[in-house]
Amino acid sequence: MDRERKIIDNFFLPLAQNKESLKLRNDAAFFKNENLVISTDMMVEGQHFTLDYSPKIIAKKLIRINLSDLAAMGAIPYGFFLNIALPKKKLGKWLTNFVAGLRSDIKEFNLKLFGGDLSNSSKIFLNATIIGKVDGIIHKDNSAKVGSEIFVSGYLGDAGLGLKLIKKAPISCSEKTKKKLIKKLHLPEPQLGLGRKLLNTANFCTDLSDGLIRELSLIANQSNVQANIFLEKIPISNFAKEIKKIQKKDDFWETILSGGEDYELLFSVNKRKKKDLKEKKINNISNIGFFSKGRGVKIFDKNGAEINIKNRGFAHF
Amino acid sequence: MDRERKIIDNFFLPLAQNKESLKLRNDAAFFKNENLVISTDMMVEGQHFTLDYSPKIIAKKLIRINLSDLAAMGAIPYGFFLNIALPKKKLGKWLTNFVAGLRSDIKEFNLKLFGGDLSNSSKIFLNATIIGKVDGIIHKDNSAKVGSEIFVSGYLGDAGLGLKLIKKAPISCSEKTKKKLIKKLHLPEPQLGLGRKLLNTANFCTDLSDGLIRELSLIANQSNVQANIFLEKIPISNFAKEIKKIQKKDDFWETILSGGEDYELLFSVNKRKKKDLKEKKINNISNIGFFSKGRGVKIFDKNGAEINIKNRGFAHF
Repeated sequence: MDRERKIIDNFFLPLAQNKESLKLRNDAAFFKNENLVISTDMMVEGQHFTLDYSPKIIAKKLIRINLSDLAAMGAIPYGFFLNIALPKKKLGKWLTNFVAGLRSDIKEFNLKLFGGDLSNSSKIFLNATIIGKVDGIIHKDNSAKVGSEIFVSGYLGDAGLGLKLIKKAPISCSEKTKKKLIKKLHLPEPQLGLGRKLLNTANFCTDLSDGLIRELSLIANQSNVQANIFLEKIPISNFAKEIKKIQKKDDFWETILSGGEDYELLFSVNKRKKKDLKEKKINNISNIGFFSKGRGVKIFDKNGAEINIKNRGFAHF
Repeated sequence: MDRERKIIDNFFLPLAQNKESLKLRNDAAFFKNENLVISTDMMVEGQHFTLDYSPKIIAKKLIRINLSDLAAMGAIPYGFFLNIALPKKKLGKWLTNFVAGLRSDIKEFNLKLFGGDLSNSSKIFLNATIIGKVDGIIHKDNSAKVGSEIFVSGYLGDAGLGLKLIKKAPISCSEKTKKKLIKKLHLPEPQLGLGRKLLNTANFCTDLSDGLIRELSLIANQSNVQANIFLEKIPISNFAKEIKKIQKKDDFWETILSGGEDYELLFSVNKRKKKDLKEKKINNISNIGFFSKGRGVKIFDKNGAEINIKNRGFAHF
């Protein structure tokens, strides 16, 4: 179990013995009588972004990572609270651009700004608490069943590669590819429609904020099952393929599987429920493996050999 | 109008044109159909506390300043979300003590922890988003009426004096007084019962987080009225009286009226509603003045002479 999860379990879970908290195992809390889900996410200068980032991008990303939590719950976006702590000198142009980013995504995702708090601070701290509406049902049972198949949406690893590129990792690729990968890092697309469609179909549903392996490990551990995934089935974009050709195999797959920040959805479906996916016209998803008896996450290459990934995903501590 | 309010009005109010936000004029947002109010408040290292503060005190204060917002809305505490960004080296003893403080106030105020987010950070940044339940009615009309009388709960200025004392201002007082005043700063008592009782009685209700003059100025400006208050009617504790005897008059009253962090309630009551206060057995409140036609806040001494206070209250910017 990783340290961040240990801290949550040791320090905070004992304080959260209420049905709304969903045992702190989900991306949000569930208010059944009110048909609301609420989630909260931070972005901290030096951790989640640097001052090189455009404030417009930071605002949009803040909204989108919170929306991704709603997607993972199968909720419809309603609105949010915003906390901003920032240095005085950022009150002019920086804040103007930040607010322009907010305005744009508030419109795009049909959100309301409900309130917030503003403070002076030597470093920028941002937090949004987002509220989604539901109709009695959410993806709250974050547990996997033996025999169910593992799916992800979209392409994995683009954001992780984008992060390597902005950190000036020695990866050579075309300017177009670089631009696209960084855009995937900066402007994730919350999978709101997919999250809704998967209600009543998926066993569990979570977003890939911290990388496939870490998210799968958490699910496998708490469900007492083993996740088996196959490298050749991992969906990667043409941009990622361009880099795959030139990068060392281990490094490449480590970024794809553990880079995080993809904000795609990870979910599993029982065999007898797989027909739902067609009936509900769910596209742009890939079956990457299955759950079996056992523990942990096993990754297999195309020859069926188990491979080992050193970096098992992003954790804050 | 102060700069913080200007920033909110210029940057954020245009994004918050929804009924839930209450025009960002209240301490919380109101979700009428769900009978919930939600508020969010930050505490930032170097702004709201220093590393000298005990983590237990910081946790309790974070909860209590958020509860004070519920008090000002007339809501019943339900639970909260917690965001913590902190340096790795604070994960041991510091976090253990912080969580002990949380646990104690969760019990005292019958709260639930619903969820949150945890991040690494070079400075400590804390945020709680608190949810309160209501029965269809809140203190949402933050406007004052000409002729109504102005009230505050408890004693004013103890927290402000406490802050001066921990900042080593040259104030001499007994050890007991020093301890009591600092305790008022560290452990405010959210006026939850009073806030509830004032429903249907007060014209407006807000907490005194940023000092009497600043809060009154905001109310007077947005209501297009003038607040008239009388120094001799301002309730001060015996501890404050000890300091009043020895401190320069102007300095003393500036701290009392503008020091902030009292978390008492400020409200007004129409003359014909004043009988409610007795009927509802509302004690420990003081009538400190009245609203008239005009603008701004006027302060009068016992001879009826207008006095001028330089520092008009706390604003972050």
